[in-house]
Amino acid sequence: MATGRVLKRIILGRAISSDKLHETLLPKRIALPIFASDALSSVAYAPDEIFLTLGLAGGSLALTHSWMIALGVVAVMLVVVASYRQNVHAYPSGGGDYEVATTNLGPRAGLMVASALLVDYVLTVAVSISSGIQNAATAMPFIRGHEATYAVILVALLTAMNLRGVRESGNAFALPTYAFMVGVLGMGVVGIIRHLTGTLPMAPSASFELVPEEGYEAIGGLALAFLLLRAFSSGCAALTGVEAISNGVPAFRKPKSRNAATTLLMMGLVAITMLMSMIMLARWTGVKYADRPGEQLLANGQPVGDSYAQDPIMGQVSKAVFSEFHPGVVFISIVTGIILILAANTAFNGFPVLGSILARDGYLPRQLHARGDRLAFSNGIIILAAVAAILIAAFNADVTRLIQLYIVGVFVSFTVSQIGMVRHWNRHLLRERDAAARSTMRRSRIINAIGAAMSGTVLIVVLATKFIHGAGYAIAAMAVLFAIMTAIHKHYTMVARELEVTDAAAQMLPARVHALVLVSKLHKPTLRALAYARATRPNTLEAITVDADPEATHALQEEWERRGIPVTLKALESPYREVTSPIVKYVKSIRRASPRELVVVYVPEYVVGHWYEQILHNQTALRLRTRLHFTPGVMVASVPWQLRSSEGQEERLASDGSSAPGSVRMGR
Amino acid sequence: MATGRVLKRIILGRAISSDKLHETLLPKRIALPIFASDALSSVAYAPDEIFLTLGLAGGSLALTHSWMIALGVVAVMLVVVASYRQNVHAYPSGGGDYEVATTNLGPRAGLMVASALLVDYVLTVAVSISSGIQNAATAMPFIRGHEATYAVILVALLTAMNLRGVRESGNAFALPTYAFMVGVLGMGVVGIIRHLTGTLPMAPSASFELVPEEGYEAIGGLALAFLLLRAFSSGCAALTGVEAISNGVPAFRKPKSRNAATTLLMMGLVAITMLMSMIMLARWTGVKYADRPGEQLLANGQPVGDSYAQDPIMGQVSKAVFSEFHPGVVFISIVTGIILILAANTAFNGFPVLGSILARDGYLPRQLHARGDRLAFSNGIIILAAVAAILIAAFNADVTRLIQLYIVGVFVSFTVSQIGMVRHWNRHLLRERDAAARSTMRRSRIINAIGAAMSGTVLIVVLATKFIHGAGYAIAAMAVLFAIMTAIHKHYTMVARELEVTDAAAQMLPARVHALVLVSKLHKPTLRALAYARATRPNTLEAITVDADPEATHALQEEWERRGIPVTLKALESPYREVTSPIVKYVKSIRRASPRELVVVYVPEYVVGHWYEQILHNQTALRLRTRLHFTPGVMVASVPWQLRSSEGQEERLASDGSSAPGSVRMGR
Repeated sequence: MATGRVLKRIILGRAISSDKLHETLLPKRIALPIFASDALSSVAYAPDEIFLTLGLAGGSLALTHSWMIALGVVAVMLVVVASYRQNVHAYPSGGGDYEVATTNLGPRAGLMVASALLVDYVLTVAVSISSGIQNAATAMPFIRGHEATYAVILVALLTAMNLRGVRESGNAFALPTYAFMVGVLGMGVVGIIRHLTGTLPMAPSASFELVPEEGYEAIGGLALAFLLLRAFSSGCAALTGVEAISNGVPAFRKPKSRNAATTLLMMGLVAITMLMSMIMLARWTGVKYADRPGEQLLANGQPVGDSYAQDPIMGQVSKAVFSEFHPGVVFISIVTGIILILAANTAFNGFPVLGSILARDGYLPRQLHARGDRLAFSNGIIILAAVAAILIAAFNADVTRLIQLYIVGVFVSFTVSQIGMVRHWNRHLLRERDAAARSTMRRSRIINAIGAAMSGTVLIVVLATKFIHGAGYAIAAMAVLFAIMTAIHKHYTMVARELEVTDAAAQMLPARVHALVLVSKLHKPTLRALAYARATRPNTLEAITVDADPEATHALQEEWERRGIPVTLKALESPYREVTSPIVKYVKSIRRASPRELVVVYVPEYVVGHWYEQILHNQTALRLRTRLHFTPGVMVASVPWQLRSSEGQEERLASDGSSAPGSVRMGR
Repeated sequence: MATGRVLKRIILGRAISSDKLHETLLPKRIALPIFASDALSSVAYAPDEIFLTLGLAGGSLALTHSWMIALGVVAVMLVVVASYRQNVHAYPSGGGDYEVATTNLGPRAGLMVASALLVDYVLTVAVSISSGIQNAATAMPFIRGHEATYAVILVALLTAMNLRGVRESGNAFALPTYAFMVGVLGMGVVGIIRHLTGTLPMAPSASFELVPEEGYEAIGGLALAFLLLRAFSSGCAALTGVEAISNGVPAFRKPKSRNAATTLLMMGLVAITMLMSMIMLARWTGVKYADRPGEQLLANGQPVGDSYAQDPIMGQVSKAVFSEFHPGVVFISIVTGIILILAANTAFNGFPVLGSILARDGYLPRQLHARGDRLAFSNGIIILAAVAAILIAAFNADVTRLIQLYIVGVFVSFTVSQIGMVRHWNRHLLRERDAAARSTMRRSRIINAIGAAMSGTVLIVVLATKFIHGAGYAIAAMAVLFAIMTAIHKHYTMVARELEVTDAAAQMLPARVHALVLVSKLHKPTLRALAYARATRPNTLEAITVDADPEATHALQEEWERRGIPVTLKALESPYREVTSPIVKYVKSIRRASPRELVVVYVPEYVVGHWYEQILHNQTALRLRTRLHFTPGVMVASVPWQLRSSEGQEERLASDGSSAPGSVRMGR
């Protein structure tokens, strides 16, 4: 096996055999971890963002107001979960927000949601990985100072994994997610008990004094309100990924919608519990969390300086709760790291799925639609990973700054899809006559209306408080995507119109077939091409060669005679030893002479095993085909000759969709 | 016209019309400037290198010994010119050293010469441009300190020019070359007169004291001899390009060989005169030239420091000779700059010519052989330019350091080809009976033998004195090229053997033809594909579609019925919405069922005008063809459908060789 292939095997894994065509659908206990990792993982950074924003106005504010913020986030979470339970029942097909928006508010709204989601997938990777690295650093200090590097490496690994076609097989994902739940909730329980028993120690940072940033000293009135709102919108990062289940209904066991809705509720409750317990513990342990710890934190009057490594709140709390039980800290740190990686991985699965839906609707290149097309998916995955890596590098894996871009997209799609749902119910209420059904619909409509209002408000708050802090970039990115996809769609529709069958003209049969066999040397491929051409019994059959080198041509003609080949060999002159032009000219002349004649050019092609061999062959054939294609009434038939080096290479190209990323969440 | 094309026009120029197919052959007065620019231009840096090397041992040595070195170089020049006059007569085909070596010493020797020449072409560009910039700086001081930048820009311009297909049209090149001769020789005459009349002023640098480098103080004996040899081999840079004419004999008017030989002699004499006069003037004007002027040059006891800008000798001498006549200095500086650019340009013409010869012999990818293939040439030119630019950047456009790599290649090819010539005469003397002819042959043989001995000696000297200074890199580069070209040749021969017609098997006609038309939608391209397929009257004809989306497939089948298309439509199932695999499987099954049947797959393809449209179409067709090619007995016929955007695009791809770089020196 060629080294190239070995390497490829190592990186991309062996071609997956297509035996396990029939995917088993997911029971709730497996579906939960698969779809929840994204939403739950945000508890690893949401509290930090709340504390950090409040921290701008000094230490006290976080301790006094953080619970208000948390309650606000919880309220939104409840509403969003409730609304999405309606989506899940109304749209079990798994189209998610994109489908809801498109069907109810028209394609442009759908495209808006799509752009938002695409941007979000990228940010999910960037934020989750960055936060994962940050948390891992709690247990592995050597990471400190090299976060960006490790983060990018991690992205690379994830990419390789997904290119390999490693699927979100239930169990592999269930274990760490449950471990995370157990860890965090367990920590919560222990913490609360210790708090009640008055044995809960303070966090390492509790002793510091947190000085307010300039201009935030003695803050009050509007400024304070604004700061609280900003903290709130940062906290809303906890909601990212809640919509995931609404895209995955088909993957659930029957009754699909019911099970999905239940899972969604479970997920919501777990997330809320985690968030609240984290916030409370952080307050009780007196965590001080600053944007620029070096300057903002004072240890007995003096700034702690940049040597001080600020653990994420998850780490600080765990260090407090498990004070004399260090393995607990390591455990929390590790499971947090893992769940964040899983969260990032969900993007790798969601991105191609959305991509294929958009491709189906003609907003992205068609080939992305073929779910089994490993190549198309690889491109998608690589693009996702590349952009995420660039973001990580650009923002130096700084979660706080990445968060600013993150939440916008989520709430754009929340809002639009909830508005869509309201429309949906309106439409149905017009037709529905059955009273019971109508009342449930009305109920759902109210819920979705509240959802729309709520997420709309949050969106406005987010934009108002974060636009200058980075949300602007996110909006810009969405706009660009929106524009590109519209352009692609326009192109496809234009082409489709151009290709519509208007008259019978296209169906008209050519009167005669004029076959040309391209001859460079007299070897097996040529003979095969001749044989194939003759087998199709054309009305006229000529062999043509380009006379780039008189001697060679003469030798060829002689051998042609000697072998008594039953086809006339015509030599086209080429003063500049140019191959394609003379042929093209000749073909055109035939077309001019008899326009109703179909010209078929048979081109022998070498099939080789390696790309570098490709460079050494078929270049002429390639260019010839390209140029001949511009002349109507000409067909190029390539007659392959398999060189030995090509043996066994075809398998490498084979692939079915069974292992395509996202196949699990699509219920295949 | 699309902006893309406009841009392309601007950069690559308009497609050249092929009216002037018949190139006029070159009279001597035009041939001289075209072929001599490379050889003559070296007078711009050879003296500098001699002085600089001698300068290592302090100022006096240059003034005392430089003339000896110059004489040595002149001697070599005379011998080389004399020997190449023999080549020109014996090998008028223009194959040059490569041909001589191959025919007389076998392919490996030829390949050795080829590698040497390829490396040399790159260095010709790097050295000439760097030196040109250095000289230009005499008149345009703002260049100082940014030499590398300006040099790279210049290379880029040359590249664009040659991609445009600007040919070495005689006159355009004749004028500056003659201007250069007039300038330098004129300066010589004026200088000598002023010297004899005692009115020749000293050079600006004459007043400086040139202190020897460490370890070179009070040098003598072997060390001195070695230093002189090193200076000599640097001076031999003057010989680069002498062989050019031997590659260009076909371009001369009849009697080709005689005219070429005469031109060669003229060139040699001019070069020698220039070199000698430069050296003498430099000595008379007491030029001080140092490798590290800042430290080595003392103005009344103190180092002049890096602020001192050291003019090349050409510049210093001209400033002395034309003391009261500054325009003369500018003139010299400009024509020197121009001729050096022309010298670089010769590489752009020689490189592709050699490339096409090597391609013909199967040492480089075949398509390089088609001289008219603009694309192939573009690649060659771009590679040449890129490597040269990298060298310039790496060596910071420092001529002195680049020279170290330069001369090796030249003398490798000189030596090998001269040895080849000796062999040549030996062979002929065995057959030749006529006494007169024999004596001339013996005479030629002696000349070539001397040439071989002389250039062999120089080669050894160069290697001995310069290996550690950089010649080693050159040798390494040659070795790599040699290896690559051997590998390519091996591959081609292996393939050729594999393809030899051994039995009649390849000629056997398939029993039946089974045609498959690939259908995705029912639009014009599909109908055309069906029409073409039917026109070829296959024994079996099926239309096949991949059932990736049940609804779509059903709709297709219905429309198929409605239009009453006289071909059965078969739907292949594809659980994972994968397109290629099901088709490949089906085709293979047909092959298995009836191995003597030829399967022809008709694939509709869209012909679009822009690369970005290409991304949106034909991806499936492309991959399908790739995979089907691995199955013997299967032929893929692509049925093009020209979209409107493709109109007028074909012309862009057309090109004939009339404007291919090097076409003039090949006598076309």
